[in-house]
Parts: sequence; C-alpha cells; structure tokens
Amino acid sequence: MTEALIPDVVRSDCPERRILEHVTSRWGTLVLIVLLERSYRFSELRRRVGGVSEKMLAQTLQTLERDGFVVRDAKPVIPPRVDYSLTPLGEEVATQIRTLAFWVEAKVPTVMQAREAYDEAH
Amino acid sequence: MTEALIPDVVRSDCPERRILEHVTSRWGTLVLIVLLERSYRFSELRRRVGGVSEKMLAQTLQTLERDGFVVRDAKPVIPPRVDYSLTPLGEEVATQIRTLAFWVEAKVPTVMQAREAYDEAH
Repeated sequence: MTEALIPDVVRSDCPERRILEHVTSRWGTLVLIVLLERSYRFSELRRRVGGVSEKMLAQTLQTLERDGFVVRDAKPVIPPRVDYSLTPLGEEVATQIRTLAFWVEAKVPTVMQAREAYDEAH
Repeated sequence: MTEALIPDVVRSDCPERRILEHVTSRWGTLVLIVLLERSYRFSELRRRVGGVSEKMLAQTLQTLERDGFVVRDAKPVIPPRVDYSLTPLGEEVATQIRTLAFWVEAKVPTVMQAREAYDEAH
C-alpha cells in the first residue's frame, strides 16, 4: 500500500482533520446516529443521547450545523419550538457512523476477550 | 425508521460506547488509518501522525492494543525495537475509518461553503 492511499487527515494543518473530528467527536457521533431516526427537539435529543450535558449538546449541534450536517429549524410558535434534523450531507456521514457503531456492537465480545487477555499479560 | 435501528451506543452505560470512543478518538482514528499502510515503529508513527505528543500516542496505542485492534511486537534486539501493527479486527475497523476520512476529504469544499453561509447568517 502506498502513501497516496492515506488521507490528508494525518497532516495536522488540514481542514479535513477538523471536520473528521467534528463527526467523530464523543457527542457528534451519537447526535448524528440519533438524528438518522427522525428530527428531534433539543430537550428530546438530550434525553435520547444518554449522559450529554446541555452545554455540550448545544456546542455539538452548533458545530454540526455550521459544517452543514445539521439543520436547526426554529418554528415561530408559542412556546418556541426548535427542531434539529440532518441535511442530505449529514445523512451520508451519519449512515457511515451508524454502520461503524453497529460493527462495534457486534464486536463487543471479541473486544472483551482481547481485554481479558491483555490484562492477564500485563 | 424505528428505534430498533439505533445502536446501543446512545446509552451512556454500555461498553460499546467506550469502544466506539477509542476508535473514533482524535488520535485513535489517525493511528488506525496510518497503520493500514504498514507496521510502524513508535518514533516513525509519531512523525507520521502530525501533531501527536509522545504521551498521547503511547496512551492511544495502549488503548487500541488492549481492545485487540493493535499488536505491539517488541523484538529482542539491541537497540530495542518495537513495532506496532493492526490485528485483523483492527484492519476491519481501520478500513471503515479510512473510508470515512476519504469521504470527509471529498466533502471539504461543501463543508467550507456551508460554513460561509452559516457565518454570514450569524
């Protein structure tokens, strides 16, 4: 395999590394996966993504919105209602992340065995 | 789409979330991608993954080794030589991460446009 097959993300000064970090961030991955299901209101989304703080969810959504993966739709109703959903670009990346998450889920027993072996040897 | 299509990672207490975090971590993603190329010695790997500190690289490799994605091979030679490479399981996950990184690379112009539009509107 040649070096040409390695994406530019390995370089520290490239914009794609920042984008990759946004979609693979701790909360970014989970928000993308959950929004594949349907659009969510902020408070619903916060309950759905176990363990996320209000601040981290707001930051994550803002970053994903700015990158063009998520749309924020503020409806002019009383009380105010804001829905978050994926753009077509967001659906593309979220589908890849979900596939990865399902793969990880299927490999949990294998990883657990590896950890046991590692812990016994160290 | 039903909730059954959402992987367990959205639950905060599941082991798969930790594993997903290891392979999608800032340095985890890059180490996996680079090791798809070939095996690397620690110092080479550190030069290849732009911006990583010695401490973070050591931590990342240890986590990936414990999960069964990376093999550490210490050769009994003088001076000591330690090679890191992917296990078959590591190759599987690294291939997915690299596909994602190439996808991100292809979408950089689209993301940049989205950011410009966002910044103008905010």
